[in-house]
Amino acid sequence: MPHDFDAALRLAPQGDHRFAGATHPAYANMVGPYGGVTAAVLLNAALQHPQRLGDPIALTVNFAAPLADGGFEVEARPVRTNRSTQHWQLTLTQGGEAAATGTAVFAARRDTWSAPEAEFPADMPAAAGLARLSGGGAPPWTQRYDMRFAPGEAPRLDGRLQPHSRSRLWVRDEPPRPLDFASLAAICDCFFPRIFVRRGQPAPIGTVSLTCFFHADAALLAAQGERHLLGCARGLNFRRGYFDQSAEVWSDDGQLLASTHQMVYYRE
Amino acid sequence: MPHDFDAALRLAPQGDHRFAGATHPAYANMVGPYGGVTAAVLLNAALQHPQRLGDPIALTVNFAAPLADGGFEVEARPVRTNRSTQHWQLTLTQGGEAAATGTAVFAARRDTWSAPEAEFPADMPAAAGLARLSGGGAPPWTQRYDMRFAPGEAPRLDGRLQPHSRSRLWVRDEPPRPLDFASLAAICDCFFPRIFVRRGQPAPIGTVSLTCFFHADAALLAAQGERHLLGCARGLNFRRGYFDQSAEVWSDDGQLLASTHQMVYYRE
Repeated sequence: MPHDFDAALRLAPQGDHRFAGATHPAYANMVGPYGGVTAAVLLNAALQHPQRLGDPIALTVNFAAPLADGGFEVEARPVRTNRSTQHWQLTLTQGGEAAATGTAVFAARRDTWSAPEAEFPADMPAAAGLARLSGGGAPPWTQRYDMRFAPGEAPRLDGRLQPHSRSRLWVRDEPPRPLDFASLAAICDCFFPRIFVRRGQPAPIGTVSLTCFFHADAALLAAQGERHLLGCARGLNFRRGYFDQSAEVWSDDGQLLASTHQMVYYRE
Repeated sequence: MPHDFDAALRLAPQGDHRFAGATHPAYANMVGPYGGVTAAVLLNAALQHPQRLGDPIALTVNFAAPLADGGFEVEARPVRTNRSTQHWQLTLTQGGEAAATGTAVFAARRDTWSAPEAEFPADMPAAAGLARLSGGGAPPWTQRYDMRFAPGEAPRLDGRLQPHSRSRLWVRDEPPRPLDFASLAAICDCFFPRIFVRRGQPAPIGTVSLTCFFHADAALLAAQGERHLLGCARGLNFRRGYFDQSAEVWSDDGQLLASTHQMVYYRE
């Protein structure tokens, strides 16, 4: 049996840069599929395209309409291929209408001067010593991740306004699955909407645009394997129906694997 | 005489979602035009499109190839228009080949619960008391901005490795021009490449993907007028040919107007 994530990613080539896929019930959200899996599906169309060059550097996915459960079509078009970089236009359609759009940049990396700058949080307890978030009442996709929040940082939906929306958690696929670019892209969308954290209560929300920057190459992802990743998320501003949130995703030995940024629609 | 920025943005409608434009010598970079103006041109095609709905929320522009000085064509296609949001696919071509691609999300905002989270840096001295960066030897576009760095935070190209790449500056169009979405998008790309700051020396670089999140609505931009904006920039990681940088852009009275994120190619 394949992992549900691989089943959700499955795309059948249709020729002319087109692929056929379908939503998977294991990754259902409140309405339609979990956005992280939709982003991973769009990335996967480029990853498995016969003209692919190198590995992902940047991915942006815009969520244009709720997906209905069922089949969809993805177009992944390599609009420009240079010596070491490749630019993709991505579109997911359902019933002939665009439900998600996106772009990706791939590149063949090479060895250069390299240096970290952001610091891995030294005070984060190991995943093994923390309890997994229980998922009573949460949508199905949340059960496809093992999430373990730093002590005191799990969202408290007690209706009390919080002074900030920062939180940290260990996260991995459930059941465990070796990390790759598609699963890393999906994990970039796993963070609770910062407005839930800030206001201490849920609200109707929807990500409109999600960007993932891949700091890891394939070797770093392979070295991570199935172990938990550390995610550190925050928002900068909530104004007139839209807020942002950003997160870093770290390997468990302190390498930055991805950083991610999104704009999210909200209603009061 | 129009401002050079408006001259650089000028697009002639060609029908069928297409517009004709041209690079402007005032915004020339080392090779081709300043990327911030290219991003602003792509955004401007959607801004002046007759089917436009609302104001920009998110913009992503991928730089696929260096632009040659001269004419180009922009396609801005509204691929999905909902009740309050609109999704755009953007392509800039030169000689029939894609030189930049992108997407944008526009929306009609409405009044909701709103709150800041990021804090305006309280210790930043006022722009009036700081010296403008002189531009000896820098490419022409840098002279189209009045940049005033916080004391000690201007890039020092003395070849000494720095422990971090954070810096803050006041910036506005030169000559002054009332702020709008296009000029705010351009300013999102005005930050010195973080690798110059971190390593204390220039390097061959090129932005491959730039994302701008617009926290401001049109009224906030109008209130800012021609005064300096505060930009606060940093990078998280430099690895194997690519680094990221992020920045917040603030009004001079402490409102977050935009946040921006990019991935940048570098060579040693």
